[in-house]
Amino acid sequence: MSKPIEYAEASAEVRAVYDDIMATRKIDWVNNFWKVLAHHPPTLRRIWANAKEVMQPGALDPLTKELIYVAVSVTNNCKYCIASHSAAARKKGMTDEQYQELLAVVGLANETNRLVFGHDAPIDERFLNP
Amino acid sequence: MSKPIEYAEASAEVRAVYDDIMATRKIDWVNNFWKVLAHHPPTLRRIWANAKEVMQPGALDPLTKELIYVAVSVTNNCKYCIASHSAAARKKGMTDEQYQELLAVVGLANETNRLVFGHDAPIDERFLNP
Amino acid sequence: MSKPIEYAEASAEVRAVYDDIMATRKIDWVNNFWKVLAHHPPTLRRIWANAKEVMQPGALDPLTKELIYVAVSVTNNCKYCIASHSAAARKKGMTDEQYQELLAVVGLANETNRLVFGHDAPIDERFLNP
Amino acid sequence: MSKPIEYAEASAEVRAVYDDIMATRKIDWVNNFWKVLAHHPPTLRRIWANAKEVMQPGALDPLTKELIYVAVSVTNNCKYCIASHSAAARKKGMTDEQYQELLAVVGLANETNRLVFGHDAPIDERFLNP
Amino acid sequence: MSKPIEYAEASAEVRAVYDDIMATRKIDWVNNFWKVLAHHPPTLRRIWANAKEVMQPGALDPLTKELIYVAVSVTNNCKYCIASHSAAARKKGMTDEQYQELLAVVGLANETNRLVFGHDAPIDERFLNP
Amino acid sequence: MSKPIEYAEASAEVRAVYDDIMATRKIDWVNNFWKVLAHHPPTLRRIWANAKEVMQPGALDPLTKELIYVAVSVTNNCKYCIASHSAAARKKGMTDEQYQELLAVVGLANETNRLVFGHDAPIDERFLNP
Repeated sequence: MSKPIEYAEASAEVRAVYDDIMATRKIDWVNNFWKVLAHHPPTLRRIWANAKEVMQPGALDPLTKELIYVAVSVTNNCKYCIASHSAAARKKGMTDEQYQELLAVVGLANETNRLVFGHDAPIDERFLNP
Repeated sequence: MSKPIEYAEASAEVRAVYDDIMATRKIDWVNNFWKVLAHHPPTLRRIWANAKEVMQPGALDPLTKELIYVAVSVTNNCKYCIASHSAAARKKGMTDEQYQELLAVVGLANETNRLVFGHDAPIDERFLNP
Repeated sequence: MSKPIEYAEASAEVRAVYDDIMATRKIDWVNNFWKVLAHHPPTLRRIWANAKEVMQPGALDPLTKELIYVAVSVTNNCKYCIASHSAAARKKGMTDEQYQELLAVVGLANETNRLVFGHDAPIDERFLNP
Repeated sequence: MSKPIEYAEASAEVRAVYDDIMATRKIDWVNNFWKVLAHHPPTLRRIWANAKEVMQPGALDPLTKELIYVAVSVTNNCKYCIASHSAAARKKGMTDEQYQELLAVVGLANETNRLVFGHDAPIDERFLNP
Repeated sequence: MSKPIEYAEASAEVRAVYDDIMATRKIDWVNNFWKVLAHHPPTLRRIWANAKEVMQPGALDPLTKELIYVAVSVTNNCKYCIASHSAAARKKGMTDEQYQELLAVVGLANETNRLVFGHDAPIDERFLNP
Repeated sequence: MSKPIEYAEASAEVRAVYDDIMATRKIDWVNNFWKVLAHHPPTLRRIWANAKEVMQPGALDPLTKELIYVAVSVTNNCKYCIASHSAAARKKGMTDEQYQELLAVVGLANETNRLVFGHDAPIDERFLNP
């Protein structure tokens, strides 16, 4: 387990990213994901730049993006990611009921994906040439 | 590969499900996923009942549910499911730009899930006791 | 895609494994899995020795072992493995109805695995100390 | 982590499902999987109905179905599911030796699935047209 | 399936990335991965910048990085990625024998990962506190 | 969780494998992976023989093989395997910087695998017929 690198012990390069995370998110703390990435500053900088770009409001709103993030993380069983991104989703308005429905869809999709694998269902002409 | 069972050759039990799928979706055809499940009528009936309940409008709207479905299917590389559920999502309003942003989030989540696995990042106290 | 190495063009070392596969299975042909492994004779020899030992009758009968093999292969979407091991299972007595029930269980397990991930259900004391 | 909802604090709707689980399984307690699903009664009811139907005796006996369930759960690393379904399998007669052989098959299948992926082995004509 | 966007039909923004890919790699063509990403120029630009940074010579040499890329792609069964990154690895010196040994390690790791999951092996004190 | 079987309580058959592990690796202890496999001596013996053969120096050096092992284990989130094989890699010379770069490649590959899945990128002619 990588020990999170706290602000007080971080290099100027790492602190600059932490500062940008806090400023962008309008919060006064940094979660452990970034503090473990700080063991490799180029990765910390690069992943933060990616996350900042990908998760910003666009054609999809930020809450929908968080729901998609959680759906992937539940499929892969990333406990940390489920905890951090469901917290982010709640902050952006996700209700308990919405989380439960998300889990129901994720469960169903993982089930039907395997039914498709087991049958090797041929793709309908209408889906190929819409 | 399971051969899809067409309406003309289907039993009354199977036709009843096909009819309900077409009536519920207000369309005049049934896609191959259901036609391969028809090789086992109890599974056809059961999975349709599940899909009908899980994918109906609720705390999450039907488009968001389709986006979550696609996110899982891309993570698992279910080609048929990506084709069928992205078609369903487009019918419910998903734009090209939204699909591209969905893929960006799915890609990023699959990447950061592994960064978390590699570091075994400890879950922040604030996430455990919000 | 690795080109399968046919018996006629195989080295003596590879032919010896092909011969043992055919003798053990009492058949007169070798399927492509072994013919692609033949590009690396040590792997061909090693994997065949493993398969021969693991899949032999033991506390679990050979059909049950094939069903477990298929269940894993459906979960991972290995088309070749589903084709070859469901053929092996049919040869050992698997019926259509049994294959359909296998798929139903595999689908359900993949679904409930994710419901557990999403809830991070604590393991019951009775399961830990039976 | 979702807190399990105990019988004493459960709604009538949830208790009805708990009662049916205990009556069907002829036991006097309910395991945590159902108690976390109880946070969303429609999912609790729906998944229990699915499990009851899928896991009942059919063309495959209940023990074989549990073994398949465990094989999927080991492949996906669902600790809770391995604990609960291997306990269910033991109750239905699974011996230590059988569990060990199951793990050997699951391991081998996960290995050979990747050897197939790496070689992209072409499916034999005999498997496509048996 | 996304249609690859050819240079002739690409926007100036997309061409600039294609040009940088060809200049960096000292080749006169662009492979389809980039041509499908071109449907969303921000993703094309972002992923290329990431790949350029991550895959450059560093503490690990470029061939070792390609081998790791292939190992992940075989585990996930990404046919396109196996084809493109094993081609890249061969260009950087990977021999047939090395590819075969890579597959053997990937297969073994996927097997032993599941043996660990099935036993839930406790992490040795010496690994936790080296 | 399987209880590790210590040398003092092990059968002669198990001790023989433990002895060979220690002799081969020139160490005076055995890690828990082997001690849980010892619950099924045929599996202990078989997996050790496989690991000994696959991980020996060959066309790929032992460090590169360990890096590939870790890459697979991070993709699958096998905590034990990450701990044990990153320890083995460090013993063979892996630096912190190399581990960080490995994680960066593993993360990127898991991301781009999904971008490929979402676009179903067609394999370039040049990769199919090099």
